[in-house]
Amino acid sequence: MSFIKNIIEGESMEMEFNENNIDLETIIRDEVNKYLSRDIGDLPATQQAPLELREKYEKMEVPNKGRDIYEVLKDLNNEVLNYLYRPNHPRSFSFIPGPASRLSWLGDILTTANNIHASNFANATLPINIERNLINYLVGKIGYEIKPAGGVFVSGGSMANLTAIVAARDAQVEMEDIKKATVYLTSQTHHSVGKALHVAGFLKNNIRRIEYNDDFTMNTDSLKAAIDKDIEEGYKPAMVIATAGTTNTGSVDDFTTLGDICDHYNLWLHVDGAYGLSHILSDKSQHLFKGIERSDSASWDAHKLLFQTYSCAMVIVKEKNHLLQSFGEDAEYLDDIASDDDVIDPEMLGIELTRPARALKLWITLQVIGEDEIIERIKYGEGLAEYAEEYVSSLDNWRIISHANLSIVNFRYENSDLTEAQNNQLNSMAAQKIADSGYAIAYTTVLNNQRVIRLCTTNPLTTHDDIRETINRLDQYIGDYDMKDA
Amino acid sequence: MSFIKNIIEGESMEMEFNENNIDLETIIRDEVNKYLSRDIGDLPATQQAPLELREKYEKMEVPNKGRDIYEVLKDLNNEVLNYLYRPNHPRSFSFIPGPASRLSWLGDILTTANNIHASNFANATLPINIERNLINYLVGKIGYEIKPAGGVFVSGGSMANLTAIVAARDAQVEMEDIKKATVYLTSQTHHSVGKALHVAGFLKNNIRRIEYNDDFTMNTDSLKAAIDKDIEEGYKPAMVIATAGTTNTGSVDDFTTLGDICDHYNLWLHVDGAYGLSHILSDKSQHLFKGIERSDSASWDAHKLLFQTYSCAMVIVKEKNHLLQSFGEDAEYLDDIASDDDVIDPEMLGIELTRPARALKLWITLQVIGEDEIIERIKYGEGLAEYAEEYVSSLDNWRIISHANLSIVNFRYENSDLTEAQNNQLNSMAAQKIADSGYAIAYTTVLNNQRVIRLCTTNPLTTHDDIRETINRLDQYIGDYDMKDA
Repeated sequence: MSFIKNIIEGESMEMEFNENNIDLETIIRDEVNKYLSRDIGDLPATQQAPLELREKYEKMEVPNKGRDIYEVLKDLNNEVLNYLYRPNHPRSFSFIPGPASRLSWLGDILTTANNIHASNFANATLPINIERNLINYLVGKIGYEIKPAGGVFVSGGSMANLTAIVAARDAQVEMEDIKKATVYLTSQTHHSVGKALHVAGFLKNNIRRIEYNDDFTMNTDSLKAAIDKDIEEGYKPAMVIATAGTTNTGSVDDFTTLGDICDHYNLWLHVDGAYGLSHILSDKSQHLFKGIERSDSASWDAHKLLFQTYSCAMVIVKEKNHLLQSFGEDAEYLDDIASDDDVIDPEMLGIELTRPARALKLWITLQVIGEDEIIERIKYGEGLAEYAEEYVSSLDNWRIISHANLSIVNFRYENSDLTEAQNNQLNSMAAQKIADSGYAIAYTTVLNNQRVIRLCTTNPLTTHDDIRETINRLDQYIGDYDMKDA
Repeated sequence: MSFIKNIIEGESMEMEFNENNIDLETIIRDEVNKYLSRDIGDLPATQQAPLELREKYEKMEVPNKGRDIYEVLKDLNNEVLNYLYRPNHPRSFSFIPGPASRLSWLGDILTTANNIHASNFANATLPINIERNLINYLVGKIGYEIKPAGGVFVSGGSMANLTAIVAARDAQVEMEDIKKATVYLTSQTHHSVGKALHVAGFLKNNIRRIEYNDDFTMNTDSLKAAIDKDIEEGYKPAMVIATAGTTNTGSVDDFTTLGDICDHYNLWLHVDGAYGLSHILSDKSQHLFKGIERSDSASWDAHKLLFQTYSCAMVIVKEKNHLLQSFGEDAEYLDDIASDDDVIDPEMLGIELTRPARALKLWITLQVIGEDEIIERIKYGEGLAEYAEEYVSSLDNWRIISHANLSIVNFRYENSDLTEAQNNQLNSMAAQKIADSGYAIAYTTVLNNQRVIRLCTTNPLTTHDDIRETINRLDQYIGDYDMKDA
């Protein structure tokens, strides 16, 4: 099939491709239309592949000769892409959902068609200007000064947290003293932070889990006490990791008090806002973020509440120079250019070199949809969580465990005739059953040692009917359950 | 335009979108067709945006109300996507090009349409089995044992190097002793390695630049001497970073000798094969990689010579447990499951949590094209570099500086009537002129303090005519140049 064609005239040779024998235009058009016309709500919210399919794909050979593309597409559509957790499904309430706009998808299509290499201005001038435009937009929302603030697009919250933590480490700690450097967070802090601290070389024993308040925010008195104790014992407190919207409960830390503490002790304040920071756009929630401009850095995921496909996230710092110092590589060169913003390539502000133009799809989405509707979508999600809280409260034997915060609410079936263990089991069982049914995904989490059901309602496609019916089904599963089966 | 529609019957409320008023089906189909039907060779290989456009996009407001989508697309197509370096252009010979297959693009379209969250089996069963399938395939090519080897897909070579370096650090160094840990590489090592070492906490002063041989591979005698000296001085040698295909010259280190040295001193051997490791598939080059199975880890970019769009790369380790120990988070939990491969999620093997299903597009490409044609493409690129070497050698005043290695060749105009500085200047001028013309990109690099022109010929769309005409134009620019203008 494939060969190197040797054309006699002029020694010219060119390669011929299998690929050219494929009617890719029709295939891509058909696939695109399939996705544009489907109603995702008709599909299961999640579905696990059976073991024999798992084995089939794990053991499949890479063929010597290519397989027919229609066969491969059949495998893909009937099997591979059939058994997915669908983060953009209207009844996908677990984790933080990914309700991506189709405009973001259009952005992906254009970005990948051009295979843009957005590491530096020489490779992609305007996509990088657009990235800076959006970083400035987000900087303004946080309340940092546009100058000297800065940031860079990364693949997700884990990378945003890692990038900020390395910048903080370099600003605060001599590596020779790393064994003395301590970091403060709570058990509600996202586990990507622990991983990032490990990658950056912080010792596990130097990570202090501070107590949290009833609303799951960091207890600032305990924080102060922990810092004082560490100083007394010869440690060097380096940074506090606060959260703007915890994954469990959507709780937002008290940035004003944390800002005071960090100022007093000269600590770096990083805010993990991967999930929650988008709510700063909502006039209903923005008061919760008061004082966030006191922080030194923040993570923000556009592939969550800014309705982008994976992977599209940002790390933002109050002073761009901190990123340059950690990632700019050649310090001598930097002295000259640090004053000249126009030559600072994104690769000098983060870990990655080759990277796709992640900002482009966000830019397309914001330009076409407009900020007002983005805000409306975010507020709609807040309203859905409140509606869920209200509806759960109207049912017997159900108790709200954490109130609707941003777009997250936690509740629990609790029958006083049953033991704690039995109640835990019923909540787990109901969550598992609704996932197995494919109707909705509403997994459990553990709050204060109790098993609770958690809804994260960020998808603007979700209706109030979806919320009610999901809760009704959970209630029904429990009502139908015979405890003797346990 | 947008509002929350309150339907009376049954309290049902749902949101209505601007987006729904857009004929996205037609728009996406038109955009897709545009890219399928264009001949990329007709476009400039690279083009810089003028200053006024840079300012326009950097200062553009996010509108409150959305802008007309056709206006936004006009901006995109006429401006943003017009001024790009095109890594997939047939005369894009600089950096390591990105000659992505359109099948990879199809993979992107499907992956992003489903917004797959490939962090763990619960979210994406079969895409993760496929990832493991391809990791095993690559593991086999390197020559590691399928068990206990392992790996994970990452965004690019920088992340692959970082992931391996953190695993190596954790296996070799107590963080308390980080100031004694030393690392060995050459000045030909890719600069992402230096950045990764910094992120992982290694001290800049402990990174040893080992001399390289005439063929730009690491001098193993100098390496041994440096290790001995460090041990004598109380340092703790930790790892050697070798390269399978340096970015400058395509040089492949001597893995057999490096393996012996690393065994002897108990060092971790990491191979940065981001660019070059794909050549291990070529029966013409695979002898160069002899002994690579002696290494402990390797980086490999599929978005280079496996013809994928950005971002698609892999880190592969000889023992999967090293990744688990560094990134698996909860060590107690891991003890139980380390024996049970089926529950090891990709998020436990690397830095990222949320991440797209990067393996899927590579799988589609390999299944449809088949291994034979992939190999043929790689060999075709090798042949192009040899052809360039042959053609340059036939011209007056041109000298080969590094022979065709994998797909890279370096050469230089050198007129003995001119000074070294003048010859350097002529080479730079010619490279700049051909880039400015848009015909081709062939930037210079510095080898042994001389400015040389470097071609990386990995694109199977490149013809022998393209090579000849590029070299002819470079020669012509120099011939036309009046040194008095300098």
